[in-house]
Amino acid sequence: MRLATLRLPRRTTAARIDGEHAVEIGAPDVGALLADPRWREIAAAADGPRHPLSTADLAPVVPRPGKIICVGLNYRNHILEMGRELPEHPTVFAKFAEALTGPYDDIVLPAVSQAMDWEAELAVIIGTTARHVPAEQAPACIAGYSVLNDVTARDYQNRTLQWLQGKTFEASTPFGPYLVTPDEVEGASMTLVCEVDGEGMQQADAGDLVFSPAELIAYLSEILTLRPGDVIATGTPGGVGHARKPPRYLADGSKVVTRISGVGELVNTARRHR
Amino acid sequence: MRLATLRLPRRTTAARIDGEHAVEIGAPDVGALLADPRWREIAAAADGPRHPLSTADLAPVVPRPGKIICVGLNYRNHILEMGRELPEHPTVFAKFAEALTGPYDDIVLPAVSQAMDWEAELAVIIGTTARHVPAEQAPACIAGYSVLNDVTARDYQNRTLQWLQGKTFEASTPFGPYLVTPDEVEGASMTLVCEVDGEGMQQADAGDLVFSPAELIAYLSEILTLRPGDVIATGTPGGVGHARKPPRYLADGSKVVTRISGVGELVNTARRHR
Repeated sequence: MRLATLRLPRRTTAARIDGEHAVEIGAPDVGALLADPRWREIAAAADGPRHPLSTADLAPVVPRPGKIICVGLNYRNHILEMGRELPEHPTVFAKFAEALTGPYDDIVLPAVSQAMDWEAELAVIIGTTARHVPAEQAPACIAGYSVLNDVTARDYQNRTLQWLQGKTFEASTPFGPYLVTPDEVEGASMTLVCEVDGEGMQQADAGDLVFSPAELIAYLSEILTLRPGDVIATGTPGGVGHARKPPRYLADGSKVVTRISGVGELVNTARRHR
Repeated sequence: MRLATLRLPRRTTAARIDGEHAVEIGAPDVGALLADPRWREIAAAADGPRHPLSTADLAPVVPRPGKIICVGLNYRNHILEMGRELPEHPTVFAKFAEALTGPYDDIVLPAVSQAMDWEAELAVIIGTTARHVPAEQAPACIAGYSVLNDVTARDYQNRTLQWLQGKTFEASTPFGPYLVTPDEVEGASMTLVCEVDGEGMQQADAGDLVFSPAELIAYLSEILTLRPGDVIATGTPGGVGHARKPPRYLADGSKVVTRISGVGELVNTARRHR
């Protein structure tokens, strides 16, 4: 099953994707849907108004997650090629919901940063309340997967020791287009790609994660309660613009495509604002 | 005016403090109250049921802020006494709402950390939507002040470069008891104190901040939109347990008093959980 949040003229709605159509579910967005423990049955049975997907205006798949927890340094080959040791613990930091933007919306380049960079990531969307969950039980806490580009202002990220301020610029982070339930990707390899202006920048297999989604849920749920609609952005592989020589950043008009095979594709244009 | 969030048997309510009583306001908590642009008039005019303050059960003053933005390294005398230079930019990191606990609740010491430490802080609660606000206009964005103890798991904070995982343990961070509107503290000095088991650990003047509340609002609102109920924890002065020789941490049963003159006092007991 694939779920999305549609923008309609005076409201938003959760929808199930049926081929070329989005079928309305009686919830204002996928986050609100997931708050109902019967969300799978409700979504599967929904038979509301249908909208052609080709003209649908999609919001971030969960528009206002309670938490967005991002993971750094989580791709094995990238860490090893950098000559670092594999970490013992995941590096985690936050992003606020204001940073999200829709899967086909503009990525806002703020006037104050000249170093906005891409970071293609597999996003895990939580489907149940989870606290002290062992890794072997954690897969049951996953509502589904999605695509997120953790676009980062490298200048702000590196102003201080803490990355948050470079990670949470308004409307910088495309997220979607769909929540894809785990059964749809079971056993398939998920290849993650980021292209900028048609040029391949990042490519990796999401199976190369040092800390898997289940391990991340186990680790984080020891610290605090995860809730339906919470998002874990699982980290980015090598190939970011900041690491290129010379560095390369997003410019006004840059076309950014972020794709995970079997999960979905974000297509965004970077636009400089005031 | 002083506002609080009360726990009642089957609900919570925002309340105005009138001497020894809390007077119900027609909103489920202070966060929901602040979402109404007429919150000042509504709160001032409220005439709901009255509860004696002496037996009131207080929740975190804003139980579920949309954002909790914490500031590090922000007390001038502490930075200078450590031999560091004053920073050019504020260091900011996040805490999630699950970390909050009430002003008289237990501070939960998680089984997995042996290094829970205190950090008394002045909290600023946002009262309007704020984006690209210059510092001179930022005071108008402040709904009021409160007290927050940014209790930190030093072992988790230092596991990786990013502090988040040590900052957001469930029910670790007392916050309240009141939102105190700026007119109540205008011109008065705010002395911040933290005592553990009756021993003074931290004492500072909140006027000693490197980045003032107005400057923080200006800085952060360049990055993203601040909204009513958002919280900025403005940083802690010297005197934390981790910096003592030998280091000292909270133990099961430790009594923690966190006080800011004219703003309020948190009284909590640390309790170890599974």
